[in-house]
Amino acid sequence: MLDVYSMAVKLKNAQKNLEISSLDDRNDALLSVSKHLWLRREEILKMNEVDVSNAKIKGMKEGLIDRLYLDENRLSNILDNIRSIEKLKDPLWKSEKVWTHKNGMTISRMSVPIGVIGIIYESRPNVTIDAFSLAIKSGNSILLKGSSSSINTNIAIVNIIKEGLKNSRISEDVVFFVEDERREVADEIMNLQGLIDLLIPRGGKDLINYVVENSKIPTLKTGEGNCHIFVDESADFKMAIDIIKNAKLQRVGVCNACEKVLIHKNIKDKFLPLLYKELNDKVELRGCELTKEIVDVKLAYENDWYEEYLDYILAIKIVDDLDDAIEHINKYGTNHSEAIITNNLRNSLIFQKRVNSACVYVNASTRFSDGTEFGFGTEMGISTQKLHARGPVGLEQLVTYKYVIVGDGQIRK
Amino acid sequence: MLDVYSMAVKLKNAQKNLEISSLDDRNDALLSVSKHLWLRREEILKMNEVDVSNAKIKGMKEGLIDRLYLDENRLSNILDNIRSIEKLKDPLWKSEKVWTHKNGMTISRMSVPIGVIGIIYESRPNVTIDAFSLAIKSGNSILLKGSSSSINTNIAIVNIIKEGLKNSRISEDVVFFVEDERREVADEIMNLQGLIDLLIPRGGKDLINYVVENSKIPTLKTGEGNCHIFVDESADFKMAIDIIKNAKLQRVGVCNACEKVLIHKNIKDKFLPLLYKELNDKVELRGCELTKEIVDVKLAYENDWYEEYLDYILAIKIVDDLDDAIEHINKYGTNHSEAIITNNLRNSLIFQKRVNSACVYVNASTRFSDGTEFGFGTEMGISTQKLHARGPVGLEQLVTYKYVIVGDGQIRK
Repeated sequence: MLDVYSMAVKLKNAQKNLEISSLDDRNDALLSVSKHLWLRREEILKMNEVDVSNAKIKGMKEGLIDRLYLDENRLSNILDNIRSIEKLKDPLWKSEKVWTHKNGMTISRMSVPIGVIGIIYESRPNVTIDAFSLAIKSGNSILLKGSSSSINTNIAIVNIIKEGLKNSRISEDVVFFVEDERREVADEIMNLQGLIDLLIPRGGKDLINYVVENSKIPTLKTGEGNCHIFVDESADFKMAIDIIKNAKLQRVGVCNACEKVLIHKNIKDKFLPLLYKELNDKVELRGCELTKEIVDVKLAYENDWYEEYLDYILAIKIVDDLDDAIEHINKYGTNHSEAIITNNLRNSLIFQKRVNSACVYVNASTRFSDGTEFGFGTEMGISTQKLHARGPVGLEQLVTYKYVIVGDGQIRK
Repeated sequence: MLDVYSMAVKLKNAQKNLEISSLDDRNDALLSVSKHLWLRREEILKMNEVDVSNAKIKGMKEGLIDRLYLDENRLSNILDNIRSIEKLKDPLWKSEKVWTHKNGMTISRMSVPIGVIGIIYESRPNVTIDAFSLAIKSGNSILLKGSSSSINTNIAIVNIIKEGLKNSRISEDVVFFVEDERREVADEIMNLQGLIDLLIPRGGKDLINYVVENSKIPTLKTGEGNCHIFVDESADFKMAIDIIKNAKLQRVGVCNACEKVLIHKNIKDKFLPLLYKELNDKVELRGCELTKEIVDVKLAYENDWYEEYLDYILAIKIVDDLDDAIEHINKYGTNHSEAIITNNLRNSLIFQKRVNSACVYVNASTRFSDGTEFGFGTEMGISTQKLHARGPVGLEQLVTYKYVIVGDGQIRK
């Protein structure tokens, strides 16, 4: 079993050829991997059974077991992602801008891979395949560190990925999976500066914060989503309720689910009872003092406004106006995804500009903050930081650029 | 005197209006500032005399005093930068990409400011004006922390900038200068996460590394430049010598100056004596063993290959071929700027692709890695990191983006 340092050295070397490989080579490799994963699906599902049964013995929550579980249908959907990525345009070696210096040199800004990417993630085995596919298509080699709970599934998947690569023109060394289950191995990875160029933690808040605060490698902060929906005075009530129900209930444990509803004070008496009627039997409702005066909900504490529940809980606050809503969101939110339901054009524009989040919605569900929905094939995570990449991280967020300057002997005067 | 925390709070508040100000408002503010700086130039030059005389008393090196020194002509050139920036297009609220989801929602990726930027910099007072101008034009407020040696000049400049802002529609709170000269104040700034969004250290290697390693705020690594020029077998010798002389000698203490020359082994006997003749009386030459066999230079040690001299020193190495040159550069370089002098098209393309630096030159001087030369007006620094921004940091590198999604009640299926 290789240690993470040796893996990183191999990844760095393999990346040198990956980065200059043709699009055909990278696409053929993805198709070969997809074919092998499907052919050997029984092996993957058998190992997944082992992980699921271990998880049950350990008393893992049902929601988490569901994230871990694979069947033929789910695997088939994951492989669809590979084929979507295969169809996307090459993100590499594009001249994004080209101009001429007055002395005649041409200056081009070209897209290039980041290099070696590391991802430390929890539970879901689809991340293994998604992360591999996005990385390889964008010319980056990838170190995968999954959680113990899905280790048998992940080992089977990565072994088959490597077999798929052996049947392609891309080296099997562009991907390594860390089988080492010691806790310290994450720290060892975080110290591989110079070998790994970018580290992406994907999972719970504690994992993410630990990596972002302690890594010596640049990180991409993903995932935490305390998402708000603001129901403005002019909102269409039916639309507002449909969107809130979708954003809260369609999937409850995901980062783009709605956690907070803010309601304009002028519509509170009419709208709140409608919302209560629709949601009270489905989720635990909490509310501010004003909300409690109108409908029978638990009191929401200061703490609630900061929390990402990832559960059947929704907190409601009555706000004075648009400014109050924006201020609340920018103070308590996580800069992920927020929506305004309104028919007021001016308010929709102010909300778009002033809300300081990666994705800002007007009259649509926050659940669309997703690489597949955005047309990126899949995603490496949803970035909630401001620098480098924001929102769903797809191929175009996994590249950087360099300037190429071609002259004929120009010197500076 | 405000502490840095209070400054950051004011900067964050002022930025909210700055970010939605019109381009006219931002441009008029820049012109007003430029006008006031010119009208009150005597005050600035008088304070600069104080700084220069203090520096002489303290025994500062002549090169550094030169960087500190201002006269009417130099100030006029700095003010030209403001006017160049004023003429540039608005980097904000551009819809860089717009597409439609199959359900009919439109998704736009829009450019938005980063927020509050901090810059910790040394000596040169032009940075005060350049950084302010770039930040304000790109909708970011800015905290300036200069060095003690230029403090009187900087205080005068920022006071006049604030007066210029008072005569504009932009709040004077979009800029603060840290007068506090305690060493600990840099640490205090590095802990202002949540208030400052990006911290840029600009100056010596020690300053940069200290900030990058210890800041809790995301940083942009700038400046260190161990730049290489590779003279390929097919190079035009005269062109190679002109470019090396320019890149080494035109300004010796700058990050885009050439520090290392690599020479293809097949031309060493012809090219080295020519280079030696042109440079030996102007710089201290150091060389590898093979170089020493041909010309009389000091021996370069392993250490030399890593060093950014910023001085009248140049180290020369004979390499086997293009691959050897690229490997050397990627191992010892700082990912700043490198050049190949060649007439071989294929080699020029391989060099462009494989050299892992922000700026890669073919037959041109590395001295062009500069915001003004690239047409960015000026620069906040030259980024040598891979993420977010690479190379000269101008207006387009001082923005991030958000997705704005506009629908008519769309929910996720």
